[in-house]
Amino acid sequence: MDKNRQLDRLLNPRKIAVIGASNSEFKVGGIVFKRLLDSRRRLYPVNPKETAIQGHKVYSDVASLPHGIDLAVITISAAGAVNAVKQCIEQKIPNYIIVAGGFGEICGEGRELENELSRTATADAVNILGPNSLGIFLPDENIDTIFVEHGDKALARDGSVACIVQSGSIGVEALGYASNTGYGMRAFIGLGNKSDLDENDFLRYFGADKKTRCLGFYLENIENGRQFLASARSISQKKPIVVLKAGMTHTAANAVSSHTGKLAGSDNVISGAFRQFGIQRVYDDEEFCDATKVLSMLPGSPGNRVAVLTAAGGYGVMCTDFIEKKSARVPLVMARLAQATKDRIKADTFEFTSCENPVDITASAGDDMFSKGLDALIDDPGVDIIICIAFFAPPGVTENLIDIIVDKNARTDKPILVFTKYGPFTDNRIKNFFHAGVVAFPSVERAVKAARFLVERTQIKQRSIKEDPAGFAKTESAETGTALADWLKTVGPSRQPDEFDAKQLVSRYGIRVPRSHRAAAGDDPDREGIAQGIDPPYVLKVCSGDILHKTELQGVMLNIEPSGLSESFLQMEQRFPGQPILVEHQTTFTGPEFIIGVINDPAMGHAVMVGAGGIFTEIYKDTAFRLVPCSISDAMDMIDELALAPVFDNFRGMDLDKEKLAVAVSQVSRLAHDMGDRLNQLDINPIVYSKGEWTALDVKVMLGP
Amino acid sequence: MDKNRQLDRLLNPRKIAVIGASNSEFKVGGIVFKRLLDSRRRLYPVNPKETAIQGHKVYSDVASLPHGIDLAVITISAAGAVNAVKQCIEQKIPNYIIVAGGFGEICGEGRELENELSRTATADAVNILGPNSLGIFLPDENIDTIFVEHGDKALARDGSVACIVQSGSIGVEALGYASNTGYGMRAFIGLGNKSDLDENDFLRYFGADKKTRCLGFYLENIENGRQFLASARSISQKKPIVVLKAGMTHTAANAVSSHTGKLAGSDNVISGAFRQFGIQRVYDDEEFCDATKVLSMLPGSPGNRVAVLTAAGGYGVMCTDFIEKKSARVPLVMARLAQATKDRIKADTFEFTSCENPVDITASAGDDMFSKGLDALIDDPGVDIIICIAFFAPPGVTENLIDIIVDKNARTDKPILVFTKYGPFTDNRIKNFFHAGVVAFPSVERAVKAARFLVERTQIKQRSIKEDPAGFAKTESAETGTALADWLKTVGPSRQPDEFDAKQLVSRYGIRVPRSHRAAAGDDPDREGIAQGIDPPYVLKVCSGDILHKTELQGVMLNIEPSGLSESFLQMEQRFPGQPILVEHQTTFTGPEFIIGVINDPAMGHAVMVGAGGIFTEIYKDTAFRLVPCSISDAMDMIDELALAPVFDNFRGMDLDKEKLAVAVSQVSRLAHDMGDRLNQLDINPIVYSKGEWTALDVKVMLGP
Repeated sequence: MDKNRQLDRLLNPRKIAVIGASNSEFKVGGIVFKRLLDSRRRLYPVNPKETAIQGHKVYSDVASLPHGIDLAVITISAAGAVNAVKQCIEQKIPNYIIVAGGFGEICGEGRELENELSRTATADAVNILGPNSLGIFLPDENIDTIFVEHGDKALARDGSVACIVQSGSIGVEALGYASNTGYGMRAFIGLGNKSDLDENDFLRYFGADKKTRCLGFYLENIENGRQFLASARSISQKKPIVVLKAGMTHTAANAVSSHTGKLAGSDNVISGAFRQFGIQRVYDDEEFCDATKVLSMLPGSPGNRVAVLTAAGGYGVMCTDFIEKKSARVPLVMARLAQATKDRIKADTFEFTSCENPVDITASAGDDMFSKGLDALIDDPGVDIIICIAFFAPPGVTENLIDIIVDKNARTDKPILVFTKYGPFTDNRIKNFFHAGVVAFPSVERAVKAARFLVERTQIKQRSIKEDPAGFAKTESAETGTALADWLKTVGPSRQPDEFDAKQLVSRYGIRVPRSHRAAAGDDPDREGIAQGIDPPYVLKVCSGDILHKTELQGVMLNIEPSGLSESFLQMEQRFPGQPILVEHQTTFTGPEFIIGVINDPAMGHAVMVGAGGIFTEIYKDTAFRLVPCSISDAMDMIDELALAPVFDNFRGMDLDKEKLAVAVSQVSRLAHDMGDRLNQLDINPIVYSKGEWTALDVKVMLGP
Repeated sequence: MDKNRQLDRLLNPRKIAVIGASNSEFKVGGIVFKRLLDSRRRLYPVNPKETAIQGHKVYSDVASLPHGIDLAVITISAAGAVNAVKQCIEQKIPNYIIVAGGFGEICGEGRELENELSRTATADAVNILGPNSLGIFLPDENIDTIFVEHGDKALARDGSVACIVQSGSIGVEALGYASNTGYGMRAFIGLGNKSDLDENDFLRYFGADKKTRCLGFYLENIENGRQFLASARSISQKKPIVVLKAGMTHTAANAVSSHTGKLAGSDNVISGAFRQFGIQRVYDDEEFCDATKVLSMLPGSPGNRVAVLTAAGGYGVMCTDFIEKKSARVPLVMARLAQATKDRIKADTFEFTSCENPVDITASAGDDMFSKGLDALIDDPGVDIIICIAFFAPPGVTENLIDIIVDKNARTDKPILVFTKYGPFTDNRIKNFFHAGVVAFPSVERAVKAARFLVERTQIKQRSIKEDPAGFAKTESAETGTALADWLKTVGPSRQPDEFDAKQLVSRYGIRVPRSHRAAAGDDPDREGIAQGIDPPYVLKVCSGDILHKTELQGVMLNIEPSGLSESFLQMEQRFPGQPILVEHQTTFTGPEFIIGVINDPAMGHAVMVGAGGIFTEIYKDTAFRLVPCSISDAMDMIDELALAPVFDNFRGMDLDKEKLAVAVSQVSRLAHDMGDRLNQLDINPIVYSKGEWTALDVKVMLGP
């Protein structure tokens, strides 16, 4: 599988054949050939009907091509393209870009042609990009095979973002638009149908590429998701990876019978997986461009304390609002400025300057005051990131402000993000900033989002340090495998586990459950055994793997004292004739209820969830997901993401153990890992904190086939 | 106060004096005069040092001006400006624009000059815009007094948005930027320091102006907030009003002693007030421009079912994500297309067209397929709004797509919103759409937000119909005033009310409280009276207006049976010597806990809140605010805004009465209204549903001075 990828010769070829080259500027083969003329590489046009194209000798067929060609760009239609590849392989050409559509995306015959390409690539150890690829574009290498108009030709040299996109036109339009305000691209790769080369290949390639400082992917589906994530985890320790993931993978329909399944959607699973493996997720093309731009231009690892310097008070307030907006993913805070900083700014500006953050030097400010204000904020150890709101309307502000910010950038690691507007000339002003190495945006919200991307990057670097390589919590019993096999035997092959079974299972993984007894219907409730060793008060529950909503069906009776046990038992029997009944100690607890769950995602495999439990589970959807295996430190991150997280921070005198909850989450992840596809879904809801331990009050397990 | 405003002559003057006019293009007076030359109005430059300016005769002083001048634009400095106004008043000039800063915004002397202007305006019944006003700009009237470069001169004629902005430069920059993609402005008003004319005047003026279809305000503070809101309510029934409110008004520090106070911030109060009075709130200048643009161009009252037509599958999915994003304010849903619609689209496009919403006609689509797809969606009664994702890269798509959408616009009331990108040429393409009357955006998110603004507009129109003019719930006892006076006597002037007092108060407004008795410390717990008429089990609580967090201080004992009452009472006495003790029936209830509260906002007066109660109040901050008086239908809206709202929708077999909760909220609002400033804060937390009634389990009342 892991054939030696010679992607260097694909992306920076010395000799290029264009199969289907043409003199016509209306044909793909004509446009591509013309583009490649600028590359100053040796070109070999192939066309049976032409003799010369743009002054180049034309080869009438592939067989007459010389050896030593690095790349064949195949611009002819689907059926011809497959044959052309086969002929080129005879000529020892190692790399291919296939432009034509009409393959897998239209089903039937096209799918068969595409499979043939895949087989060829594997059998002959060549690299095929596409089919249905928009091509590649590497400004620094003068390589451009893209046949549609793309304004990103206006992009700066020395760009450092590798953009790998599944939908080529999306990439071209968005990046072309971004080029109006400046965007530094290292490479554009149109993946197309991914018959051979896919995101995994380019992740590894650009992950190791010296000129690449940030990788950005637009993906509709992820090939070999687990492999992609594993590579991302190690590459993300060195370079930011941004992914725009569109195209939902649907969770299997049956998954919605559990709370966890209802809450999962694959989207939450993907978000959790991305966090776990060091990928920064974005949600539209604007965020894609902004995130890759800021992450490639501003390295550093800033903290999350933001200072705002503004000459327009209202914008300072708007900026504050966006900074303080709640974000589970990347919380930012307004920096508290040192008194010395405030004094210094006042002395350098006006007596009436408002020096609480945001610092408002008013429309009377001039270049020099911006300069001194920035110096003071850079020197304040309580400031991690500076957002500079730069308007050019105030009479004292000139274009020199750009150079001033460039100078500050040079003397500090603290990121300086600029928000600027200059009426209809805004985009040009932002482009000027860009060429000077300054990251600027025409919207406050986008500047603040950029700060979040930087801080998220810091989180990723920090997480990689504390990562628990074992991936799991350590259990006291190492014999979980045996325990599991025993348990599966007790359940048997023909039925779904009931609550008693399910609790037995999780207790084998170290999660406490209340003492209980599963009585058969018809058992004598006055017999001692029914509640033997169980402290009152009791809970009675109908106990069947087939009854999913027992509360709604009045299948739960609470607060039962020994004196009332017999009568309650008989009542329950009447309600649910022939069903076993669980007699259980009723647990008292403090603090809120949590839920821990597992689903088996069709694309990503098992994912574990923790969230707010009880009746609020479905209301607030306050949950976090990670893929299995989920380490204790992953689980701690999950808990910290919850809106409910403050309850661990000495909230109202509660004394809840966060680490123990994280261990339970990690243990559930281990359980899912051990069970493999036998485990379809699992819900522990609620799990509560009782007498120093997290205790599972209700557990459901749904087995797969 | 309500002098006859002759704003017509301010905004469309026939004769204009420019005090401080100049030949220099570097002086404000020179720039303004030059701008006004384009107005083709009669101009009267005043300058003691010049004889002719741009071919106009110059008046050496104000006294020599003729009568009949409508407007004086005063471009000289602060001190001179005040004198100039006084001299102009001698010449019977009714309207003034004062450009100079150096007034109230710099305190001290400037503040005094500004007060003088205010007094003059009132005493002499003239209109003063400013000081510190950037001026006015009405494209259709050829009136432009703005002295800074503003690119919005490129704006279209026949614009219909009135922009009234407190910070002129912000308006100019943002609107100038918006003009790159097309923006139709009726008027730009720089309010400046609002010494006389303020947002209230222009709200009324443009509310009645025939050429204005939408009003947009940028405000840092709101003058006469209640008056502004009252005008907005009636005008918003005819025209959309959009407000960008920056600059927080801080809730009095003592307000944070209640839950409601902690949750309020003035920001939540303002958001609630805006909803209540028909104002659409935006959070930055981009939203300001987008909202006013779409609301002025697309009237109609669409429902919230959105269909998406796309030639790029990935963007269709992104769009779906934004549409389905949770929004308490304006929820959107993806329309469910009729089978006939799907069949029709398939027949008119491709067999493989994905016809579930989003409808993906793929990159193979052409103009005609867009046309037929739009027709099918327009004809589907299950579709309220159409988002058309228009890329021009597909070979089959041409610029004619613009005309196609124009045609569809003409034949349907359903709004068609366009998302488009065309690389670096995107802005121009959007401007072409604009000039053809089509609203387009360069970002999916902004297109979806535009849909939300339209649906919010529908909500406002619908709300005005069902509005309860009385403003309050009807109480069974009409004698609330007397009841209140009696109650205030029982509390007396020298202490804060305790829980018993507070419950007495709310029960006089029809809100049920548990039966209880306030026993003095030292009362004999074995005496019958202490729990007379109260059903067990009991709750004991320390009962003092000075103890705010009694749960944390162990001042609450639950589940007390008659047999244990005496002992528990003595324990409580020991914990809180000398304090009264509340003996209360312990209420059982179903469903979640709610909170109802009141704060007295320094800017807006009393606001009432409803939200998730209990320990989740501070975690999820799931609350809604409205100003007092709050009608029952206002209160129903508030409840519907909560994330918790689904619990009223037959959630898990709960049978909670939403209308009764709304009545309770409205009654609390009546209570606040009756008490006036005597009521500082009130918390009912929790209020729970017990045996068919909402019951206040804990109530705090904090009196003001």
